[in-house]
Amino acid sequence: MRIALGVGYNGQRYNGWQSQPSGNTVQDRLEAALAQFATLPVPTICAGRTDAGVHGIMQVAHFDTELTRTPYSWVRGTNTFLPADIAVQWVSPVPDDFHARFSATARRYAYVLLQSPVRPSVEAGRVGWVFHELDGQAMQAAAAQLLGEHDFSSFRASTCQAKSPVKTLSRLAISRRAAPPGDALSRLHGLGRPGEPPMQTCYWHFEFEGNAFLHHMVRNIMGCLIAIGQGKQPVDWMQAVLAARSRDAAAPTFSPDGLYFLGPVYDPAWGLPTRAAAFDWLP
Amino acid sequence: MRIALGVGYNGQRYNGWQSQPSGNTVQDRLEAALAQFATLPVPTICAGRTDAGVHGIMQVAHFDTELTRTPYSWVRGTNTFLPADIAVQWVSPVPDDFHARFSATARRYAYVLLQSPVRPSVEAGRVGWVFHELDGQAMQAAAAQLLGEHDFSSFRASTCQAKSPVKTLSRLAISRRAAPPGDALSRLHGLGRPGEPPMQTCYWHFEFEGNAFLHHMVRNIMGCLIAIGQGKQPVDWMQAVLAARSRDAAAPTFSPDGLYFLGPVYDPAWGLPTRAAAFDWLP
Repeated sequence: MRIALGVGYNGQRYNGWQSQPSGNTVQDRLEAALAQFATLPVPTICAGRTDAGVHGIMQVAHFDTELTRTPYSWVRGTNTFLPADIAVQWVSPVPDDFHARFSATARRYAYVLLQSPVRPSVEAGRVGWVFHELDGQAMQAAAAQLLGEHDFSSFRASTCQAKSPVKTLSRLAISRRAAPPGDALSRLHGLGRPGEPPMQTCYWHFEFEGNAFLHHMVRNIMGCLIAIGQGKQPVDWMQAVLAARSRDAAAPTFSPDGLYFLGPVYDPAWGLPTRAAAFDWLP
Repeated sequence: MRIALGVGYNGQRYNGWQSQPSGNTVQDRLEAALAQFATLPVPTICAGRTDAGVHGIMQVAHFDTELTRTPYSWVRGTNTFLPADIAVQWVSPVPDDFHARFSATARRYAYVLLQSPVRPSVEAGRVGWVFHELDGQAMQAAAAQLLGEHDFSSFRASTCQAKSPVKTLSRLAISRRAAPPGDALSRLHGLGRPGEPPMQTCYWHFEFEGNAFLHHMVRNIMGCLIAIGQGKQPVDWMQAVLAARSRDAAAPTFSPDGLYFLGPVYDPAWGLPTRAAAFDWLP
């Protein structure tokens, strides 16, 4: 019997999703917990691997088993053996032709970015950080240049194992969550750097959706968007970077801290969730 | 010269605020960083100590120094020597009669609670967790019984050093942040426990404001509110617990994970912020 599961994790302590000899990955921990519950090895296949430090709101994986347990029992049983920062959120039996990776028609990521003269503290490891004011309109205009089917080689890590660099980015939405007027974040950071105007502290949210993503693609796009948002590069630079089809053309890979894998999208016929909600409560 | 500062921290890794021989407290880390920047010992006094595992959105502390530096320089310099999960947010010179603790007219706390059949993962250590449906109206009615000046001995830890158990609780607001309809949190958790109706996954926010708080007071009140919210106790039980003036009357101390010290309130004449904004982005 094939089983699909949704799993959430805080990536800060782990070397990414994919199993490693170190054993310190999310997949290693999940498979160890499943094996303890099932008293048998339980290899899993996931919808989208995540890097070290990247978080999963709703990673989806599947595995095959002879064991007959209720979904409730799988969730509670497996979570008993998982560390506090990883938890199976749901379990669902699926037909044998469901495949967590190949059945996914799209994948969604979010990047949460703190704009503040002062680095994060409570939210350290869970948000990226910039200490310059960003221009949202410029970033949105640059983002629009990436929509559609393109060769994304410029945003591809040298370690990327994808067969083709051609992917379709269907959505890149940018929104700003400013502090309500009068509160500490907006008042305090009159601070500012010497010689610079006071800056507004806020959080930026970036939502990405595409059929698939190359290794480091979101973080490399983030680096370029931020360079444009800071005015270090003009809006049209994004198009030039894309056209270059060379990693050398793009900005450095941005921090994994604020990156969340929201989850895959499947045909509704599978009966699995397509929207990861915890994002609504991200900082 | 007297200096006030605001500091944020994620309490997960620390044994609370107050300095200990172990050195693993927020105060120890802050004073070590200030001393490194100032090249002199810098003892601090804070507005409200927090327990192990409790987070600070805007703790305020003061210290005295002969060193003349700009606020910007204090913030950046001190943060250089602080770990990633603690950061000074602002610095402001204050008159010598300002006192972080005694000048505070009120203190504010928030508790964030995940209601879900499945434990938290991404937000582990930053939210409390209940796996029963809570009754918001019952909790709000019980909370109303605590407002005003009372002897809060029933909610006081045996280790509490306060001179008097009589405090004034001026606000206890409860709100529920349900997942938008159709998304994973609300759909998935049709899961439910065997024999129980499917439950709605949501986050509850509790905001406390009072002139001062006894040791464990918020966590002990949370324990009682949750007992009432689950229907284990009637609404009027809160009044009975309060009247008993005995710790034995109340529920067990609830987890520190979801507790945030939002910060103290000062007379606006001091020119310091009274509202901690990061709470608006809590999970």
